[in-house]
Amino acid sequence: MSGAAPPVFEVVARDGNARAGVLHTAHGPIETPVFMPVGTQASVKALSSGDVERLGARIILGNTYHLSLRPGAERVSELGGLHRFMAWPGAILTDSGGFQVFSLRERRTIDEDGATFRSHLDGSEQRLTPERAMQIQALLGSDIAMAFDECPPSDAPLEVVTAAMARTTRWARRCLEAPRAAGQLRFGIVQGGVDVALRRAHLAELAELPFDGLALGGLGVGEPPPVMHAVVGAIAPEMPHNRARYLMGVGTPEDLRAGIRAGIDMFDCVMPTRNARNGQLFICEGRLNIANAQHRDDPRPVEAGCPCECCASYSRAYLSHLYHAKELLYYRLATVHNLQHYLDLARRARAAIIAGVVSESSW
Amino acid sequence: MSGAAPPVFEVVARDGNARAGVLHTAHGPIETPVFMPVGTQASVKALSSGDVERLGARIILGNTYHLSLRPGAERVSELGGLHRFMAWPGAILTDSGGFQVFSLRERRTIDEDGATFRSHLDGSEQRLTPERAMQIQALLGSDIAMAFDECPPSDAPLEVVTAAMARTTRWARRCLEAPRAAGQLRFGIVQGGVDVALRRAHLAELAELPFDGLALGGLGVGEPPPVMHAVVGAIAPEMPHNRARYLMGVGTPEDLRAGIRAGIDMFDCVMPTRNARNGQLFICEGRLNIANAQHRDDPRPVEAGCPCECCASYSRAYLSHLYHAKELLYYRLATVHNLQHYLDLARRARAAIIAGVVSESSW
Repeated sequence: MSGAAPPVFEVVARDGNARAGVLHTAHGPIETPVFMPVGTQASVKALSSGDVERLGARIILGNTYHLSLRPGAERVSELGGLHRFMAWPGAILTDSGGFQVFSLRERRTIDEDGATFRSHLDGSEQRLTPERAMQIQALLGSDIAMAFDECPPSDAPLEVVTAAMARTTRWARRCLEAPRAAGQLRFGIVQGGVDVALRRAHLAELAELPFDGLALGGLGVGEPPPVMHAVVGAIAPEMPHNRARYLMGVGTPEDLRAGIRAGIDMFDCVMPTRNARNGQLFICEGRLNIANAQHRDDPRPVEAGCPCECCASYSRAYLSHLYHAKELLYYRLATVHNLQHYLDLARRARAAIIAGVVSESSW
Repeated sequence: MSGAAPPVFEVVARDGNARAGVLHTAHGPIETPVFMPVGTQASVKALSSGDVERLGARIILGNTYHLSLRPGAERVSELGGLHRFMAWPGAILTDSGGFQVFSLRERRTIDEDGATFRSHLDGSEQRLTPERAMQIQALLGSDIAMAFDECPPSDAPLEVVTAAMARTTRWARRCLEAPRAAGQLRFGIVQGGVDVALRRAHLAELAELPFDGLALGGLGVGEPPPVMHAVVGAIAPEMPHNRARYLMGVGTPEDLRAGIRAGIDMFDCVMPTRNARNGQLFICEGRLNIANAQHRDDPRPVEAGCPCECCASYSRAYLSHLYHAKELLYYRLATVHNLQHYLDLARRARAAIIAGVVSESSW
């Protein structure tokens, strides 16, 4: 008996450019398209791991930059890894820290070997290199490690974008040579700003490397949505068909729909969790601001028929009260609802792709 | 077939002055001794009603003063009452607002009819009378309404204490004449400061009135614990044996033990919930401050063997991380643990009373 290693990613259905797939991780299979809740600091804000599991999420994000500063990657490793630390039984994707470091515009310097920056917590000098970013992710024990990339600002001049692309490719090779955790998958990150030709060129370089999946980085960072949708619509269909495609840090429900139709498989964004805390709740008809006075006396749930803990038991009036009273329970219920909305969107998309109606139905 | 109405409160076992009992409410029987988690603003802070239920709590507190200011008693009534508003299936005791109003020292004036005060939320002028306090509690639909009392400061001179006692008795009679919600029980509040003779005199007045239970108010408000324990130790055994005895707003685990041994049946206090949020966790050996550096690397649960969600899944190291990172999940896990500690203390006390070992064992 012999056989090839099972594929990391399988496409189980196509509808136009959209795909339904399964990504196999060390912590179980992930059905795609998938939305990944963000657990920056080893916690999906306001939720327990049990809450996230009950929402049906099977993969969440952790953050190399934040976790390496606090509580520290070596400490998490000593405590049994990130899954055990936060009692999360599903899969974890860790970003490489590149995006956060390059967002510290005034507090970092970049050289060919890596980036030096000051911690936002205590101002201490820190350094990330491709090797250290991969070491941190190995110590955390994530299921998917992202390559350490250089992510230029959305308004960077052409020569800055092209230099960042070239360096990201060199760093990607170093990431692939670094040790990884057992069973850990590695994804490369395609840069190139909003220029389709540059994106295409960088995709060609990265697709040559033996990454398990490829991501589009540096989108949803300030450019108008139609510009982003155009780039994703042009590039996603050209990404390798047999590997998972991940649109990093995006976005609104509309952005997810556009991405899924273009053939993106994976998404993450702080929008559902952050906006929940700020009072904005996603519903099928759009968005609801719980701060508005009209909700104070409304006995209806946030969304009729929504199976989440918030809608199953509580009224808009109660949410409104908790919000105005700054009760901690507000943040949890609102977060639960918004994540349910995002997770359901991806699940409905998958069903629509399998049914072959992704272009018709309003999933 | 005919029979007497079932008693509101039954003593099922005695051990010295301590009693194990059952208090029958419109939302089910409550086994005593019992600790009641505080849900001031229609939420036990950081917890959902489901969390509180899973902890085994069967009765919680609501607050007339806070709820009448926000969201408003009439609004809660329109929305189906406090149980439905906060999705709590168990019993609710509402305090009368007296303690909160009389704590607003600079912002209230008292006359024979009631108290006028300024809202801590918007400075608006508000008025509470015995009749309005009972109306609010009827609108909220609580299972147990507390009489509106005058609660003098712990350092008040004798003539102030005696005047407050006399007024509290007059107000108690007015509370009993006011309408109440269907099935709502009414408890009177015994004042008298830390003077046993005054307490005894006021108890004699209140015991004459047809309250379903009696409370000791104005204790745990700054006097040294031994002073409070002496008052409770002298007065609790003299309270009517066939009615529930409630020590309001008290206290530490040691205070609960002393109260239970003296014959108190019911307790409430913000200590487990508030201290949790401030980093103090109750364990059998005493108290643990999660802010201390020693916990950062500790893989043990807060308390080995504790069945709460916090101890079942998470380490001290994780709690320490969440606390330092100000993650919202910290407040919930710490609150769950501290309430488990308090609820278990009362449950162990009940078992010890029934077993007749309340004076011996270290429950």
